[in-house]
Amino acid sequence: MSAGSADFSREDQQFMALAIELAKKGRFTCTPNPAVGCVLVKEGRIVGQGYHAKAGEGHAEVMAMRQAGEQAKGATAYVTLEPCSHYGRTPPCAKGLIEAGVSKVIAAMQDPNPQVAGRGLRMLNEAGVETAVGLLEQEAEQLNRGFLKRMRTGFPYVQLKMAMSIDGRTAMANGESQWITGELARQDVQQYRAMASAILSTSKTVMTDDAALTVRWQQLSEQIKADYPEQKLRQPLRIILDSQHKIQPTGRLFATESPIWLISSQERAMQNFPDFCQQQMIAESPYFFTDLFNFLGRQQINSVWVEAGATLAGKLLEAELVDELIVYIAPKLLGDQARGLCHLPQLQHLADVPLWQLAETQQIGEDIKLVYRKPNL
Amino acid sequence: MSAGSADFSREDQQFMALAIELAKKGRFTCTPNPAVGCVLVKEGRIVGQGYHAKAGEGHAEVMAMRQAGEQAKGATAYVTLEPCSHYGRTPPCAKGLIEAGVSKVIAAMQDPNPQVAGRGLRMLNEAGVETAVGLLEQEAEQLNRGFLKRMRTGFPYVQLKMAMSIDGRTAMANGESQWITGELARQDVQQYRAMASAILSTSKTVMTDDAALTVRWQQLSEQIKADYPEQKLRQPLRIILDSQHKIQPTGRLFATESPIWLISSQERAMQNFPDFCQQQMIAESPYFFTDLFNFLGRQQINSVWVEAGATLAGKLLEAELVDELIVYIAPKLLGDQARGLCHLPQLQHLADVPLWQLAETQQIGEDIKLVYRKPNL
Repeated sequence: MSAGSADFSREDQQFMALAIELAKKGRFTCTPNPAVGCVLVKEGRIVGQGYHAKAGEGHAEVMAMRQAGEQAKGATAYVTLEPCSHYGRTPPCAKGLIEAGVSKVIAAMQDPNPQVAGRGLRMLNEAGVETAVGLLEQEAEQLNRGFLKRMRTGFPYVQLKMAMSIDGRTAMANGESQWITGELARQDVQQYRAMASAILSTSKTVMTDDAALTVRWQQLSEQIKADYPEQKLRQPLRIILDSQHKIQPTGRLFATESPIWLISSQERAMQNFPDFCQQQMIAESPYFFTDLFNFLGRQQINSVWVEAGATLAGKLLEAELVDELIVYIAPKLLGDQARGLCHLPQLQHLADVPLWQLAETQQIGEDIKLVYRKPNL
Repeated sequence: MSAGSADFSREDQQFMALAIELAKKGRFTCTPNPAVGCVLVKEGRIVGQGYHAKAGEGHAEVMAMRQAGEQAKGATAYVTLEPCSHYGRTPPCAKGLIEAGVSKVIAAMQDPNPQVAGRGLRMLNEAGVETAVGLLEQEAEQLNRGFLKRMRTGFPYVQLKMAMSIDGRTAMANGESQWITGELARQDVQQYRAMASAILSTSKTVMTDDAALTVRWQQLSEQIKADYPEQKLRQPLRIILDSQHKIQPTGRLFATESPIWLISSQERAMQNFPDFCQQQMIAESPYFFTDLFNFLGRQQINSVWVEAGATLAGKLLEAELVDELIVYIAPKLLGDQARGLCHLPQLQHLADVPLWQLAETQQIGEDIKLVYRKPNL
């Protein structure tokens, strides 16, 4: 039922790589579902392809089978994630593949969703469909960091955005900070926002910058725009920490009609706020942030993109809730009187400082982007 | 006499690229002279090659002609720098090329040395030797950033080394700092030290770290070691700022018998110091650092590699004396209580902050190196 990469042919790899490219087309809209792509191949020829665009709409396998029609019979299906085995908003894909007469299913990886977790492949096997798993597994894993982490741990995948000078400063001593990085870096941020299930910030940041925290479609790259037309634009949920109920329903945050959650430990009057703005209460406790992300996971939020100041950054890092650092470095030095990147408690020894793993570097205009991940994720 | 790149053939480019590779072999030992390479080609065949290894020893052209012997007659010489026209420790190379009967000289660039500055090419022209200049000029410029800057401005080329955490911190709040970056990054530093005419630091840094500030041949890369045998190892001049005469002739700095200059504005008793350690006085003034580097330029120091703390870094940056930042970033966050990278005066507006230009990025073990240069250098 499972197989090592060595057992796959070069053709298998090419078809799975195509399935992964297809899956990517859904990554801006599929949350809370995973991005999945599927290619159906019969006698070396592609007879159907599809991807999952949106919860409630057809799964990748269904889209591919629809295209293949009668030709699905005897075909091999390349799927980036194990076909589902449970009745959700749509019937199980494993059942659909069996009924269509597909003779072999190659999945890039098993689905860690407890409702699937090998059952999809077993259902296929028991119906006499040959299966294999593990082709381009790493690439498939990267497609769905958020969904996979939530399925495995209950917590969303957390990306912390940082924009700083070479010497790690986010603002002048007097607080002047906007546009520390260049325009292209800010466009790059739009792409991360567009992929996130939710954007997290604080009332302080929102009020200081009059931040909208929306995806501005115009600022996405031309390549993304081609796959992701403006009328399909999904705005991520905006989550604002506002423990002291300071935020008022004015400013650019409220100019876009799209869900906002205000987080605090106390109930507040909401009559002045628009309908798309709700409060969510998380009890005060030393584990406030762990409780918050646990709550977000239960709300099916796969990934959280954090844009905030040094205090929130430090608290999330201290609670070990951050999976990825996205660091934009502007080619400037601001000096040690300027504002720091993250507030952390004092450690006594360098040896106690956790190590990150440099995963990506990319020059973006005059700036550079460094992406760090928790080791072994 | 001069020509655009378009006038050079593909073969010309290949021979000049070889001359540049040859020049590099001299870059650890040639100071205060420039690194120069030369290839002699006759009828499409290389008849001689050479490079300049050390002041007082043969220039690149002489080495190549020695190898070519009679075959230099009628050959084309590819030289990375305009042949010299003046009697120094060796007779002028332009004269040598004429006497050997070379028929054409292609130089990557003119020599800005006021004693040459086009006279070498003119001397050749007047003797009926065809000349051209400007082939792979940028690459040739990079070979000798130090020499060229000193010839053009009187000041050495200054490289400031910085080793920091992702958030721009150099040490824990308690001062613990050694080995913030990994071993491979520290080996990379050895290569820069080996190329520098001088290493600049402060008595504070030397005493805190018990620094030797020497090149440790064993730590150079295998590739460099192959071209640069241990018995040829040149130790750069060590320049220590010690305004308050705090340094004592103990510790690792004095364990290597190689020149040390102690810089202050006041004369001090030197009888306890070894002979290889001298004092140099620079008067106190608001232009102390400008005066210091001007003095170093007059002492034929082409390039200075700075390893010091946030105070000296800040002062050099403020005086606009730094040409290049070499920034090693360790994959750690130390938080805003840890020590900053450089102490700078407060500016009021981000728009007033000078921009650097990202010139190189390289992953080195777990760390990343970013090299920034002053724009338009």
